[in-house]
Amino acid sequence: MKELLEAMEREGMGKAGGIVKVDMFLNHRLDTGLLVRMGEAFREAFAGSVADVILTVESSGIAVAVTTAQAFGNLPVIFAKKGKPATLSDDVYVSRVYSYTRGERCPISVAKALLPQGVRALIIDDFLANGEAAHGLVEIARQAQAHVTGIGVCVEKSFQSGGAQLRREGYKVVSLATVEGIQGGKLLLAEGRDA
Amino acid sequence: MKELLEAMEREGMGKAGGIVKVDMFLNHRLDTGLLVRMGEAFREAFAGSVADVILTVESSGIAVAVTTAQAFGNLPVIFAKKGKPATLSDDVYVSRVYSYTRGERCPISVAKALLPQGVRALIIDDFLANGEAAHGLVEIARQAQAHVTGIGVCVEKSFQSGGAQLRREGYKVVSLATVEGIQGGKLLLAEGRDA
Repeated sequence: MKELLEAMEREGMGKAGGIVKVDMFLNHRLDTGLLVRMGEAFREAFAGSVADVILTVESSGIAVAVTTAQAFGNLPVIFAKKGKPATLSDDVYVSRVYSYTRGERCPISVAKALLPQGVRALIIDDFLANGEAAHGLVEIARQAQAHVTGIGVCVEKSFQSGGAQLRREGYKVVSLATVEGIQGGKLLLAEGRDA
Repeated sequence: MKELLEAMEREGMGKAGGIVKVDMFLNHRLDTGLLVRMGEAFREAFAGSVADVILTVESSGIAVAVTTAQAFGNLPVIFAKKGKPATLSDDVYVSRVYSYTRGERCPISVAKALLPQGVRALIIDDFLANGEAAHGLVEIARQAQAHVTGIGVCVEKSFQSGGAQLRREGYKVVSLATVEGIQGGKLLLAEGRDA
């Protein structure tokens, strides 16, 4: 997606440890117009399948999940919560996701009452790197016997293995921009992937 | 706002300790259409003042901040991050907010580079109870010498003091629905307040 690549070229930064910093428009300050158009891009990319719900994880997945839900005619959004579930474990679907920021595996959860058995869920998130968050959401969908219709991410780091692995597992994974590497603080950018 | 009150009547719950549970449509599962219309309601309520940015705090403020930003013609959104800032303290505006969930004061922060001095910020959040989050955002705006054009919240708990206090301090505070109390698990609902 040209507009996203231009924003990343202009305002994105690469940091040590493969960190891609896009605070200016994607996960601290939000470029609302760009979010709307990314939602429309996901609708086009996933036009072939019908979803009942958009599934994401707090916090930085929420904004693009909402604009994607709007593009699909105001689908409901469910965001998994991070951290120890506040309610009884019988009432939630839980999976554990390795957090590179914290250096440990942390639970993410969705209240069972919110995700009925058998729904069709489109997973949307801001980033795909090692696929930790996406696999965590896939696992929650599995527990709910939900059908994952696809996985859409704004930015895929193709130098990490999450995208390749999810595609090998048979998921349709769409990214709107790709970071192929980081060189001297600069992002090596390429078109998003859809296959 | 009639639609919000109906959703709260139908799906909201009151719990011990003054907790209002609206997981079904506002802060775990999101009713996207309702979010869009709440954004439009905030645009109408704050039509008299011009803002450059919508300011909120993660996580559950993000969705309604984005739809409000859309209603204002795609304003940028900045969401304060919870927890210890990842970067140097010189680079962030920080305030401390009492978290009733955690039982302690926790920092919220915004990177200085994202909030230029002197901007006009409309604060948007899902809930207003004791005003902890709103005061934390006001404090961050003060550090950035930003002008707070108003404070919009989906649900105000009028049995807690945040709304009254912020209005005494001179802020225009708009809520779209009010919870006046909780009785036997049921929410005592009333129209939102705009004064």
